[in-house]
Amino acid sequence: MKTTITDNLSWNKIRNSVIQTEEFLSTGGNLRLSTKEVFVDRILMKYKNDELNEGFNNLEKLAASMHFFKAKQLIDNSEVFKLLKLMPKGGLLHGHNAAMVSSEWIIKNLTYYPGLLKCTNKDGVVIFSFRKSDSHNCNTNYELVANERNRSNNPEFYDRILEKSINLYVPRPEVEYPNIKVVWDKFQNIFLTVNDFIKFLPVFKAYHYRLLEEMYQDGIFYIEMRHTFSQGYDHKNSLSAIEMTLELLNVVKDFKRTHPDFIDLRAIYQVKRRITIEELSQQISQFLTLRSYFPEFIIGIDLVGQEDTGNSLYYYYKLLQQLSPTNRFFFHAGETNWYGVAADYNILDAILLNTTRIGHGYALVKHPVLWNSVKRYGIAIEVSLISNQILHLVEDLRNHPAAFYISENIPIVITNDDPGFWNAKGLSYDFYYCLMAVGSNRAGLKLLKQLIINSLKYSAMTSNDKNIAIKIFHKRWNNFLDHIIKNYNLYNSKN
Amino acid sequence: MKTTITDNLSWNKIRNSVIQTEEFLSTGGNLRLSTKEVFVDRILMKYKNDELNEGFNNLEKLAASMHFFKAKQLIDNSEVFKLLKLMPKGGLLHGHNAAMVSSEWIIKNLTYYPGLLKCTNKDGVVIFSFRKSDSHNCNTNYELVANERNRSNNPEFYDRILEKSINLYVPRPEVEYPNIKVVWDKFQNIFLTVNDFIKFLPVFKAYHYRLLEEMYQDGIFYIEMRHTFSQGYDHKNSLSAIEMTLELLNVVKDFKRTHPDFIDLRAIYQVKRRITIEELSQQISQFLTLRSYFPEFIIGIDLVGQEDTGNSLYYYYKLLQQLSPTNRFFFHAGETNWYGVAADYNILDAILLNTTRIGHGYALVKHPVLWNSVKRYGIAIEVSLISNQILHLVEDLRNHPAAFYISENIPIVITNDDPGFWNAKGLSYDFYYCLMAVGSNRAGLKLLKQLIINSLKYSAMTSNDKNIAIKIFHKRWNNFLDHIIKNYNLYNSKN
Repeated sequence: MKTTITDNLSWNKIRNSVIQTEEFLSTGGNLRLSTKEVFVDRILMKYKNDELNEGFNNLEKLAASMHFFKAKQLIDNSEVFKLLKLMPKGGLLHGHNAAMVSSEWIIKNLTYYPGLLKCTNKDGVVIFSFRKSDSHNCNTNYELVANERNRSNNPEFYDRILEKSINLYVPRPEVEYPNIKVVWDKFQNIFLTVNDFIKFLPVFKAYHYRLLEEMYQDGIFYIEMRHTFSQGYDHKNSLSAIEMTLELLNVVKDFKRTHPDFIDLRAIYQVKRRITIEELSQQISQFLTLRSYFPEFIIGIDLVGQEDTGNSLYYYYKLLQQLSPTNRFFFHAGETNWYGVAADYNILDAILLNTTRIGHGYALVKHPVLWNSVKRYGIAIEVSLISNQILHLVEDLRNHPAAFYISENIPIVITNDDPGFWNAKGLSYDFYYCLMAVGSNRAGLKLLKQLIINSLKYSAMTSNDKNIAIKIFHKRWNNFLDHIIKNYNLYNSKN
Repeated sequence: MKTTITDNLSWNKIRNSVIQTEEFLSTGGNLRLSTKEVFVDRILMKYKNDELNEGFNNLEKLAASMHFFKAKQLIDNSEVFKLLKLMPKGGLLHGHNAAMVSSEWIIKNLTYYPGLLKCTNKDGVVIFSFRKSDSHNCNTNYELVANERNRSNNPEFYDRILEKSINLYVPRPEVEYPNIKVVWDKFQNIFLTVNDFIKFLPVFKAYHYRLLEEMYQDGIFYIEMRHTFSQGYDHKNSLSAIEMTLELLNVVKDFKRTHPDFIDLRAIYQVKRRITIEELSQQISQFLTLRSYFPEFIIGIDLVGQEDTGNSLYYYYKLLQQLSPTNRFFFHAGETNWYGVAADYNILDAILLNTTRIGHGYALVKHPVLWNSVKRYGIAIEVSLISNQILHLVEDLRNHPAAFYISENIPIVITNDDPGFWNAKGLSYDFYYCLMAVGSNRAGLKLLKQLIINSLKYSAMTSNDKNIAIKIFHKRWNNFLDHIIKNYNLYNSKN
């Protein structure tokens, strides 16, 4: 039976109750903030409200509703963003190693390494490498990048053109990327461009050291990274996947020496979802072998690549279910706009395979049994907002299903996927969209803190490591709060 | 505890169980189809699968994912669409009277009515009228449209230009309507263009007769229409709102005489949500007066206009809750991308005001307490897919929250809002997107049938009228099935 509310007091009471109940049910809703946190939350909310109000009145300034390529400059100038950059982010649980370092740094540093060759394959894709190989499928001669650059009138301009081959930025994405295929084709070409380039040991080491630096600079102190384990090479020899992994572990060791509060880098063995069942079987063998050498470093396995056009988990499930449960899965699933097709049902099969987390899970919102399962089993969804926007799942991120996940407190973590390909260093830009576009206008520090806690809670760390991580988080969080409070006083005195 | 499934038989069993359970839980999931219906469903699904597969392989042909302005030609050629055009649609529960008739017909017929004047106001908006008035705020002289047309070299071309002033079509909406404000400004200007034009009695009558015809031709046999009740005029006199309503009722009577299975047109008194509380109070008085004259025709009241920038329901709630419960509400609520703002909370206040249905309810998905309430109280959501796309809430309709509403069997009806402004006659185009973009790839006749049943079930008809409506539906539905089965045999023999 419907009832009619007639007095204003009870109207406001029930109205506020519903609003508060929904907030309590949402991600971070049951956190209690300390006095310091309440203070910082007020500062954050002041900036957030000011910026959203300004955007509301002038939509050309509403970065939260815009494509990242158009919004980036506005975000860079946002006070909210400046604050988010200072915030410790916890763990980064979804990123692909070849796509995480900023393209600008790569061009300005790694492409200056002597001996870098360049050719173009039959599809017009630029290939970087330090060796000649039939596998590059070159349609042109190899040229030394150093020679080309010297011959050009303008090395600066030359580098800008070069950067285009490893970055998806375009000024008008709505025109230049009219559908998912166009942008995915270019996206996958970039992996081809850098594939052999970063297997060259000196580059491999410098690249991954820089990766750790860029993430650390953004407040990330733990990483679980999708990684392509493969042979590499140096000036003289071919190097095995084991040797390359040892080199990578040395890079991490070096980094940890000078960054004692960086916990660790772990790797998820990634396999392309286009391979045959036989090839997957071989890959699983290699995974098991490598994992026997590096049981702590390699935490699990995943299938990657465009889900719509690749093979489904169901296609491989007989093989995958044979793997002992000590081998964790971190499956990409439901990174699709389609509903009721194989890519969509990948979420179902990932859950049936006891996946530890789900990459993207964009389609989850349409599946009541699945989103309830994910909640009950505590399977976190790795949400990559900017990635989903750039790779053409959603335009205005206010329509991203993560808003639903937050409203239902479905466990999510904020991740960055391939930040190097689109000028998004670290996680701050993704956190910006999460706070400004996906979360309620009223959401603030509680949401952010819970997301950071989630990034540790839903990681594959041992409980011992998690305790260390929580301690580091508390210390950095406290420093962050103090820093903001101090700066806000400064800000107050200026205004 | 997680369990691991190890044998393939149980894998497929549980997998299919989940898929079937989710389908059973979704809109139409518990309908049992007759033998005839199963047969037609197969035909429908064959066309649907063919078309989606073709689109999957060539995204430039995937109308379901495209903006209506780009997709329309593809849809017009779609076999699924041809079938949907033949399907009886039941009731149309959300459309605004001034925006429902196709602009082409208006230009080719009503603008040829002798004496039509045209001027342009200070904002460059064309005003059509049969009288001069300060209220038009003309910045130019009034010209007779007939004279202008005669003077033009090319009347066809002249009419095409004229049509642009009452239609939102542009070839590149993603460029020409960069944000919600740009398109809403033009949208609201069209209402200004036609406002005084359709108040002219001969036009008023012809317009509304045509409205009934266009809807009826598309299989709609009952309408609840948002209507602006206001004074009109003829060659000599001003006519009261009561007189205009009597004229409208005569139009309906005439139409029903020649269309005996058209049940009725009913009206929802619409008020702009920009007015003051005092103005709303006066409007409510007029509503109550008119309703006392036309208690069956006027079924309730609604507040209309852009929610983001207009007043909230909360702003008016004290006045609205004083209305006796015999006056039904049909509130627009949550037609917004914003989350946690007044427009978003309109859904909450609409529910607290015991609204009979909710117009749009786009933001509902983000509110767990509210979407559960809507389910429990049986408050139907009037979903206007093409409207939400054109008016800049969502680009790819596969991201529309109605997919979630269907997955949860939240009561929804498919509506068209303002089809005359964007070349979408009747409801078939909206049903097309519902079937091809919003529903699962596996959804077919069960979904469609339940949506049609919903359009009668959640109407404001008396139970007596509903029984009549159900009988008409069954008869027309049966004819539709027979027609398809017959045509399919034809199709089979050709192929």
